[in-house]
Amino acid sequence: MKIALDALGGDFGAKPNVLGAIKAVAEFGCEVILVGDENAIKEELAKAPKYDESKISVIHATEAVDMAASPARECRQKKNASIVVCAQLVKDGKADAMISAGNSGATMVAGVFVLGRINGVSRPAIASPMPTQKGVAVIIDAGANADCKPLYLLQFAVMGSIYSNIAYGVQNPLVGLMSIGEEEGKGNILVKEAAKYMRRLGINYYGNIEGRDVHGGMIDVVVCDGFTGNIMLKLSEGLAKSLFHMIKAQLKPRPLCALGALLAKPAFKAVKDSTDPECYGGAPLLGVKGPVIICHGKSGPNAIYNAIKVCGRLVENNAAKIIEENIAALKPVFDELGGEDA
Amino acid sequence: MKIALDALGGDFGAKPNVLGAIKAVAEFGCEVILVGDENAIKEELAKAPKYDESKISVIHATEAVDMAASPARECRQKKNASIVVCAQLVKDGKADAMISAGNSGATMVAGVFVLGRINGVSRPAIASPMPTQKGVAVIIDAGANADCKPLYLLQFAVMGSIYSNIAYGVQNPLVGLMSIGEEEGKGNILVKEAAKYMRRLGINYYGNIEGRDVHGGMIDVVVCDGFTGNIMLKLSEGLAKSLFHMIKAQLKPRPLCALGALLAKPAFKAVKDSTDPECYGGAPLLGVKGPVIICHGKSGPNAIYNAIKVCGRLVENNAAKIIEENIAALKPVFDELGGEDA
Repeated sequence: MKIALDALGGDFGAKPNVLGAIKAVAEFGCEVILVGDENAIKEELAKAPKYDESKISVIHATEAVDMAASPARECRQKKNASIVVCAQLVKDGKADAMISAGNSGATMVAGVFVLGRINGVSRPAIASPMPTQKGVAVIIDAGANADCKPLYLLQFAVMGSIYSNIAYGVQNPLVGLMSIGEEEGKGNILVKEAAKYMRRLGINYYGNIEGRDVHGGMIDVVVCDGFTGNIMLKLSEGLAKSLFHMIKAQLKPRPLCALGALLAKPAFKAVKDSTDPECYGGAPLLGVKGPVIICHGKSGPNAIYNAIKVCGRLVENNAAKIIEENIAALKPVFDELGGEDA
Repeated sequence: MKIALDALGGDFGAKPNVLGAIKAVAEFGCEVILVGDENAIKEELAKAPKYDESKISVIHATEAVDMAASPARECRQKKNASIVVCAQLVKDGKADAMISAGNSGATMVAGVFVLGRINGVSRPAIASPMPTQKGVAVIIDAGANADCKPLYLLQFAVMGSIYSNIAYGVQNPLVGLMSIGEEEGKGNILVKEAAKYMRRLGINYYGNIEGRDVHGGMIDVVVCDGFTGNIMLKLSEGLAKSLFHMIKAQLKPRPLCALGALLAKPAFKAVKDSTDPECYGGAPLLGVKGPVIICHGKSGPNAIYNAIKVCGRLVENNAAKIIEENIAALKPVFDELGGEDA
């Protein structure tokens, strides 16, 4: 298996990409093509621990996609942008999957415009891991589609269910529709319309869920439009951070409390570790031909390593084919809502 | 000042309403009309500490509004529903404001159908307090309008700004538009359209904010549709609860950590107290004639007391009149978007 890794992406340059790749190569025996600034990559490789040189190659590509310009034209014209090179490698069969911690918009654009949508999928969507009390839930869509139609949500439900099973090994994942009010018929127009069709998808559908249900971990897949999903993810990130800030601020003027907190630290660290999104291998763009994984800009080596791990599962299980088959089998349902290009 | 308090509402019956009312009467010298099951209320009053009997009266009303039926018809026909009686007291000038910890949908319905909308306001909205690192932000709309038009968001911004100033004393509140992506032009269709007009409202407008900005406390008023707002509030509630659960679970097998946590408890309690929504006096339905405050079903006496306190500020400052004047002054802007009944 070969992974194209955008080593130009991410806030910390080539380093975490190189280190994550080396660890993954050693453990999984996969190959990684590092795409980016050749000098920077080779410098990091030289400093890195020993690795199997036959399994890591480098392609020089330093151009960046201009997100303000037309995405399709950018992908056509900037053939030497690292993210476009990665996508082209997958398209040409020279890599099985691609990963980037760079601009997530650019990664989406490259995925959609270079690789193309899977037949029958109306809108590719980002499936992001959200740590919960019991492990991890998949939020789909986490931001690819700010405005959605009911049909898209139905397809997100199908793709999210497949992903939860393949990436996290969840048997028969429980899928919830994000809404306000638990009763069917509660929510906005989009959700109310989508809810009418959910039980026809052959997935393990729970029904409407509310905001307070997400972190408890009762649901494996949370279906929502990309506007809602993105806000949920960033809100959770911000709240967790603020809570720890507030605790710190209250400890400061209380020496005895601060001492106690020091003693309790291992427990806090355990919580922090178990809710670290880096464990969960990034967020795939589902619905495009071939695995595309978007990592957080702040990804460290471990996040890249885990993204490669999840990538491996998607490739081995042929996730794209499973999605295509499931979407095709549900065509009659989707057609009632206007079909693929609704 | 007289407050009509729905003592039938809330998960804990008459008790917290009676106790909250007694405390408020003693402190603010206001009058409270307790509306609900007369026997239950009088029983609680008999058990309660001494209070000024001239300031607390009781009206017997035990009917409940059926939320599945037509709201307008329910309000017309069930004239003896406690929430309808409260609204009618305000309408008839026999009370200055109303509060309920009962079904929030029923409270909204009574507010809108009995009291009526303020002239020029397209959709009344719920302004809910969200505790932050620096105090409290106002989320508007917190769930009254699942589907919104740009015009509504603009009016929410105006009403939320007025409320933040009156209820929490914030000078020139900073108003943010909830979106994904900070740059103007990012977001869903609704937000992108609303953003174009925000700077013409004469409020202290920050621009787009993201999910991670809310709990840090940089923004005083967060403007969003009611679907997004409701999810944000419940998600925050659920996440905070889950985090404390997870910490507890990690302490259990670590005796030394558990001891440390015990020592640190006062600091945790301080954080819990400062983020307790009960401090912030419930969530008003803004845009109806006369203050209507919706309290959490789980409200204790302190939440009711604080709701009465905020009610007092809304009455004294004539919030409804200020909203009406500000909305009227902005009519030319709103007319560009289709006007009041868009």
